[in-house]
Amino acid sequence: MTLFRKPIPIEEALIKLMQFPKQIEEEYIELTASAGRVLSRDVYASHPVPWFIRSPYDGYAVRASSTKEAGEHNPIWLELLGIVAAGDVWHGTLQEGQAVKIMTGGAVPDGANAVIMRELTKEEERDGKTFVQLKRKLKEGENISSVGEDIEEGTRLLTKGTYINAGVIALLATFGYEKVPVTRKPKVAIIATGSELLGTDEPLMPGKIRNSNGFMLYTQALRSGAEPISFGVVKDTFEQTLETVRAALKAADIVVTTGGVSVGDFDYIPAVYKELGAELLFNKIAMRPGSVTSAAVLGDQLLFGLSGNPSACYVGFELFTRPVIRTMLGMENVYLQKVEATLKQDVLKANPFTRFVRSKLSFEGGRLYVQPSGKDKSNIVSSLPGADCFMVLPGGTRGWQAGSMVEVVLIEGQDGMREWK
Amino acid sequence: MTLFRKPIPIEEALIKLMQFPKQIEEEYIELTASAGRVLSRDVYASHPVPWFIRSPYDGYAVRASSTKEAGEHNPIWLELLGIVAAGDVWHGTLQEGQAVKIMTGGAVPDGANAVIMRELTKEEERDGKTFVQLKRKLKEGENISSVGEDIEEGTRLLTKGTYINAGVIALLATFGYEKVPVTRKPKVAIIATGSELLGTDEPLMPGKIRNSNGFMLYTQALRSGAEPISFGVVKDTFEQTLETVRAALKAADIVVTTGGVSVGDFDYIPAVYKELGAELLFNKIAMRPGSVTSAAVLGDQLLFGLSGNPSACYVGFELFTRPVIRTMLGMENVYLQKVEATLKQDVLKANPFTRFVRSKLSFEGGRLYVQPSGKDKSNIVSSLPGADCFMVLPGGTRGWQAGSMVEVVLIEGQDGMREWK
Repeated sequence: MTLFRKPIPIEEALIKLMQFPKQIEEEYIELTASAGRVLSRDVYASHPVPWFIRSPYDGYAVRASSTKEAGEHNPIWLELLGIVAAGDVWHGTLQEGQAVKIMTGGAVPDGANAVIMRELTKEEERDGKTFVQLKRKLKEGENISSVGEDIEEGTRLLTKGTYINAGVIALLATFGYEKVPVTRKPKVAIIATGSELLGTDEPLMPGKIRNSNGFMLYTQALRSGAEPISFGVVKDTFEQTLETVRAALKAADIVVTTGGVSVGDFDYIPAVYKELGAELLFNKIAMRPGSVTSAAVLGDQLLFGLSGNPSACYVGFELFTRPVIRTMLGMENVYLQKVEATLKQDVLKANPFTRFVRSKLSFEGGRLYVQPSGKDKSNIVSSLPGADCFMVLPGGTRGWQAGSMVEVVLIEGQDGMREWK
Repeated sequence: MTLFRKPIPIEEALIKLMQFPKQIEEEYIELTASAGRVLSRDVYASHPVPWFIRSPYDGYAVRASSTKEAGEHNPIWLELLGIVAAGDVWHGTLQEGQAVKIMTGGAVPDGANAVIMRELTKEEERDGKTFVQLKRKLKEGENISSVGEDIEEGTRLLTKGTYINAGVIALLATFGYEKVPVTRKPKVAIIATGSELLGTDEPLMPGKIRNSNGFMLYTQALRSGAEPISFGVVKDTFEQTLETVRAALKAADIVVTTGGVSVGDFDYIPAVYKELGAELLFNKIAMRPGSVTSAAVLGDQLLFGLSGNPSACYVGFELFTRPVIRTMLGMENVYLQKVEATLKQDVLKANPFTRFVRSKLSFEGGRLYVQPSGKDKSNIVSSLPGADCFMVLPGGTRGWQAGSMVEVVLIEGQDGMREWK
């Protein structure tokens, strides 16, 4: 089967693609299971933080006005009424000349409006009473955490689409979220196609290689926030490919295949799309590697036909499948973050198309630097483990010299861009 | 109980601490479960990649010498003998004047030493035979992936201590790793101490707040590569704290408590260390927040007494507990990565101690910029969700102006430093 293939720019392919994905449904999960998930709703402060007047230190709660005569050479003594531990409440109102011992996090008693740190005081007993000595004046509000100082009631704390990290979890716990509303993970079916592919349990045989893309995509899908479902390896027959893609469409939200998408006699993905009645969105992108990256839509399901070459497959997933997954998760900045960096070494190979070179970012003297992470043929897998970014080299140039400023796409982080440009 | 507390520099605390942790035992896990884990052994190439001569394109395998007369205006015709699909092997040796159709990834037949891309050819049938037309000369080795081109046999592909990402998994799959040797995750017991702490299921009560540090530490432990075990909340009594720490020492490799470590009357962690016979390593660090961060050692187990203040707790874990976990995982660069960045806004608060300000990194024109991610009192939790780094502001200064270059510690990535300096 021969298909007309016109390479289109990445931007154009993304426009065609990104009209389809929509945020999927939410689910409630345990707080401890929510790290790495994505909030499906805004979170508001149901109470101020602190929600009562707290002491940030171990010390003594007093009225500031009781300390106005205190000084280095003029110690004053306040009568100690008792102690407030964290979690306790002092019943009664503090008067002039009185103090209450207070622990970090303790509720400051009514009447008190300042706290002196314990290290600056001493206690003494006289006539069956205890007194505390101060040698400095306190200002009203000194060493006191006021109500709402950290967070005012009603504040929008977190927006839907937020990636849940340790700080987000601390905030959710503060407001008593036992269960957290998150977007369900999009299910991504992964199918490795190719009669040359062996399972990891099979011995090497002439002409055969092991399936590595399937496992790689599985991990890329995990990192993007999806739930991968492996459909293993299918041989290059139209029937088997069709049958497996059909099963995958039933089980998953998105179907990703690797291989079978080029112009070879046994590349059945285009024919499978046609047989399914899927609308082809694109089948050739003006970029390297990954130029054969294809996508189609069937109802509300997207199908990605990625290259069988490991690096082309990797790039195709990150540039096209990942933003779809992030959109389904309800995230805002769905595109990989693009930054600028100084090229650390010459990259002199010319290419008519935009190239994505697997690279490693580094930092020096407040600047970003980038260099290729290894060999850069598209069938080469050895440069992937060390890559944390792609260097973007626009097409048509004669290569790039060390010291040039180039664009870099970051692939390991959770930050992103709202638009691809 | 009053303890002598002499603040020591971070470097000194790390030296005391880091003599104890050792790499723990390995285990074998499924390849698909290994993302985010750490290799416990070096991985070598058990065969070259490719391990046979492969075609990187759909096209025709030929002898280069058969094409020496071919040119744009001098098409030549080679007899087509058959086809090699990916995974197939051609039996026989290709002679001058002959061609074999070959698919991407197919084994190049004996006798052939070049491949012409399909797009540059056409086929024609004559007298019951098929011929393929070429209009250009091929060089020996052109469009051929030679044996070992990507990876030579015996190459050390990955070193023990490597964090397993999608690229690493692709490489492991290539070499048939069904099971992967990884270091067992260190078990980290997490105990939140404080009579003021409520569980997420309890309603707010006067003087009480919800436990957020326990959940935050749980997530920080996950991110650092550990297996967190939650021991919930304990009230501020010596007996309950002791009992829970004892249970935690039985269940985990490392015990982390939050709260109870300061000079308050109900801060029982120092007494618990003493009762257990644990050797105190430090109990005061010259830094803010987190100055009360403590650590002790009992046999081969480390105990961390982190502050009850959320931000101090967060910083204490990242600076001290994380490198211990990473060392137990057998990683090399166990310390958080430190880089330089330009300050985006004034941070004018002076402080006698080194400060770690929760901050957000950004990139512009090839440079790194940093700014605080929110309010910066140590009891404040609202600035944690947006933080991806700490700005390090050395003590004793009068504050910092926008445009100054400052050190920044990255907390979200997997990269790190071998030494803290």
